[in-house]
Amino acid sequence: MIMEYDGTEFCGFQRQGDLRTVQLVMEQAASRVFGHSAKVRGAGRTDSGVHAIGQVISTDCMGSIPTDRMIRALNSILPEDIAVSRVVEVEEQFCAQRCATSKVYRYVFSDHEYASPFVSRYALPLRQRVDIQAMQEAASQFEGSHDFAAFRATGSSAKTTTRTVLSSKVSVREAIGRLIVFEIEANGFLYNMVRIMAGTLLEVGRGRIGAHDVSEIMRLGARENAGPTLPPNGLWLMCVRYERHGSLTATHQLY
Amino acid sequence: MIMEYDGTEFCGFQRQGDLRTVQLVMEQAASRVFGHSAKVRGAGRTDSGVHAIGQVISTDCMGSIPTDRMIRALNSILPEDIAVSRVVEVEEQFCAQRCATSKVYRYVFSDHEYASPFVSRYALPLRQRVDIQAMQEAASQFEGSHDFAAFRATGSSAKTTTRTVLSSKVSVREAIGRLIVFEIEANGFLYNMVRIMAGTLLEVGRGRIGAHDVSEIMRLGARENAGPTLPPNGLWLMCVRYERHGSLTATHQLY
Repeated sequence: MIMEYDGTEFCGFQRQGDLRTVQLVMEQAASRVFGHSAKVRGAGRTDSGVHAIGQVISTDCMGSIPTDRMIRALNSILPEDIAVSRVVEVEEQFCAQRCATSKVYRYVFSDHEYASPFVSRYALPLRQRVDIQAMQEAASQFEGSHDFAAFRATGSSAKTTTRTVLSSKVSVREAIGRLIVFEIEANGFLYNMVRIMAGTLLEVGRGRIGAHDVSEIMRLGARENAGPTLPPNGLWLMCVRYERHGSLTATHQLY
Repeated sequence: MIMEYDGTEFCGFQRQGDLRTVQLVMEQAASRVFGHSAKVRGAGRTDSGVHAIGQVISTDCMGSIPTDRMIRALNSILPEDIAVSRVVEVEEQFCAQRCATSKVYRYVFSDHEYASPFVSRYALPLRQRVDIQAMQEAASQFEGSHDFAAFRATGSSAKTTTRTVLSSKVSVREAIGRLIVFEIEANGFLYNMVRIMAGTLLEVGRGRIGAHDVSEIMRLGARENAGPTLPPNGLWLMCVRYERHGSLTATHQLY
């Protein structure tokens, strides 16, 4: 299933007891519609406050409910800040998390002179102009296979810190003032990786880190050389790609 | 001052004791910044849940605070769902409400197949296709000076129910799925007028009221012939116009 949610009122994706998580809300809705208890796996374990427009989850349904009826039934139960946009039947071994070949995230900034209430829920207000070209040069250095140890939350434990970034770009679009969009696709992400990368690009945009220092920060591998971890509200899970099913992309985009 | 707010968490514009209204929040912020108590008048008394991107308020400031510093000071105090976008110095007799020559409102529908969490906060989800051309034909009949008694909430008391509609149009734009935007400019609005007009246009779009019956509904003047009052979340106060100060328009638009 492809899902979208406004992360503001969710305590992240992953189930934590009775807290209002995406997994809990989806498992409760799916269990009601399927008529049996349903476990849900998510492609990306988004944190509290992070939005998704192309999250992918997998679950088992024993009955034979037509997909369009399943979408309508789930959406009629789900609260207003979460929706199912597509349902695809897959092979039994499919797992939304393990089978994903890459994921696309966005971090959205607004450099509008004040924080519009229609922007600050979905993007990080900067209230000052930044150097876009420098941010673009810096972002392109993330592309390729690198050790991203400098771009993960301290204390997190992943077996390896090498990931392959397929694409990393900064673009600008006019909507609700000017938005600066950092979009990155990789075969995997370390904990807080995109928010630290975005924080580093912001330091570049403000002239505090040189546009060409990003490669050196990666090489040195020390968290303290990278920029701050930015708040979750600017982060979006856009789409997840699979070998057998192609891009499970949202049917629309907010910006 | 030009203001924008996400109406979801406000109990409307007009002060009602200690309820969280736009007027209360603004008067408290202005009093702190001005250093003296400040009364606020609004051009449009938007209801609970109605959004504004171009609301205009007037207030008296005894000191001499430069306008750009006033904007920054107010926005640093105001909560996230409300902001001041512009401050203009005006003549002492100016009143945002009495001096307004016209106001522009929008009612936004989404006919996307499901209610996206990023749409349903700001537009009315329809979950079905409607006849746009019929809605456009119907909307144009509101233009001109008419008695709009059929398009006001029952029980409301206005001295006269005749208003002049300067422009009334339905357009479609692609953003977060397809949005249908009803935009109307008039020299004044009766209570719930735009929401009842939008409800009537929706009945036209669904084929329950004929596109050419709108004139007849106006002529008969009976509330029961018009469509339902639609929910507030699709309604937006876009801009207010003044003889001396021109359009006090928002610097950006959401859709």
